[in-house]
Amino acid sequence: MLTLFYAPHTCSLATHIALKDAGADHQLRRIDFGTSEQQSPEYLAINPKARVPALLTDRGVLTETPAMLAYVAQRYPAAQLAPFDDPFALAEVQAFNSYLCATLHVAHSHRMRGYRWASEPSSFADMQRKVPESVGACFTLIEKSMLKGPWVFGARYTIADPYLFTLAQWLEADGVDPASIPRVVEHRARMAERSNVREAIAEELEG
Amino acid sequence: MLTLFYAPHTCSLATHIALKDAGADHQLRRIDFGTSEQQSPEYLAINPKARVPALLTDRGVLTETPAMLAYVAQRYPAAQLAPFDDPFALAEVQAFNSYLCATLHVAHSHRMRGYRWASEPSSFADMQRKVPESVGACFTLIEKSMLKGPWVFGARYTIADPYLFTLAQWLEADGVDPASIPRVVEHRARMAERSNVREAIAEELEG
Repeated sequence: MLTLFYAPHTCSLATHIALKDAGADHQLRRIDFGTSEQQSPEYLAINPKARVPALLTDRGVLTETPAMLAYVAQRYPAAQLAPFDDPFALAEVQAFNSYLCATLHVAHSHRMRGYRWASEPSSFADMQRKVPESVGACFTLIEKSMLKGPWVFGARYTIADPYLFTLAQWLEADGVDPASIPRVVEHRARMAERSNVREAIAEELEG
Repeated sequence: MLTLFYAPHTCSLATHIALKDAGADHQLRRIDFGTSEQQSPEYLAINPKARVPALLTDRGVLTETPAMLAYVAQRYPAAQLAPFDDPFALAEVQAFNSYLCATLHVAHSHRMRGYRWASEPSSFADMQRKVPESVGACFTLIEKSMLKGPWVFGARYTIADPYLFTLAQWLEADGVDPASIPRVVEHRARMAERSNVREAIAEELEG
């Protein structure tokens, strides 16, 4: 049994969807950001980074979405969620997910989490003004150079798909014009039709 | 033959060291940041992200250090640079490298590349003042919770080691007190003694 520590409207949704796609036996444990539960001694013992997601396994705790997604794919190979038999193809998937994690998500985080990298309210406001441009540039690069369609890597659905879908939830709030990235928006709609995705979102909001 | 597009004093050093550790047939191609070669049409055709590193393979181009390191490890299994036969252990390595990429390196980048996320000189100065704290917090977490020693994952050297070594090159310039993270500094010294590391650094400065 795997336990996913999550919060609604965060990137934990990507791993949640992947667990369903893999058919993995799992349970959810919601971390309440409203009471700063991610800072509690109990949660810090699970994840000293004080963030979600974290995945409790029979071997210990994993963090970082690209690593958790790869773990789910490798541990449940029947679902064929990543090409572990092909070093180049696997590296392409990992590179895509690394870009989402380290560039797109980071750009997005400057809208509400500027305190991680600065201290002055004027800096936070400046960062917020830049988000439509910085996040938009990431989505434009994905639209033009990365997203093959219908899934990120073409005909084969992979762990890149739930991750892109999850971060694409935020693009309107980040001030990105959906009309400028029609293929990303089509991918998001295609994902939203999947029963695993619908169920994952519903469970997180109920939980 | 693999071709690594690199620039001195950047994170491309991590993959360079790993290529040597793997015994991979490779060549170097320096990208001249002084003339903004990373923005040239020729380089954008290789890597539209306009960054280093990039790794040209017989199948195409790879980017993103965590993905490139995993590719080197998987393609040259005799070097045993990552535990590809163990999903949990591999995910731990990937999680460590993802943290370096998306949190530590990103915090560092706010010292000189604040224009990625803001526009005002006052914001850049504010970001620079925060770097000793934000980068320092990352290294403290690594020191206390992640670095097992003598290598990142204990007795077994992995692709996490050249990556940590590479980012630890910058800690003094980022205003982090080396005395506060003695185990990280010991790891850096242990890495610096390796012939592959010494040769990789010398080649990058000559190239």
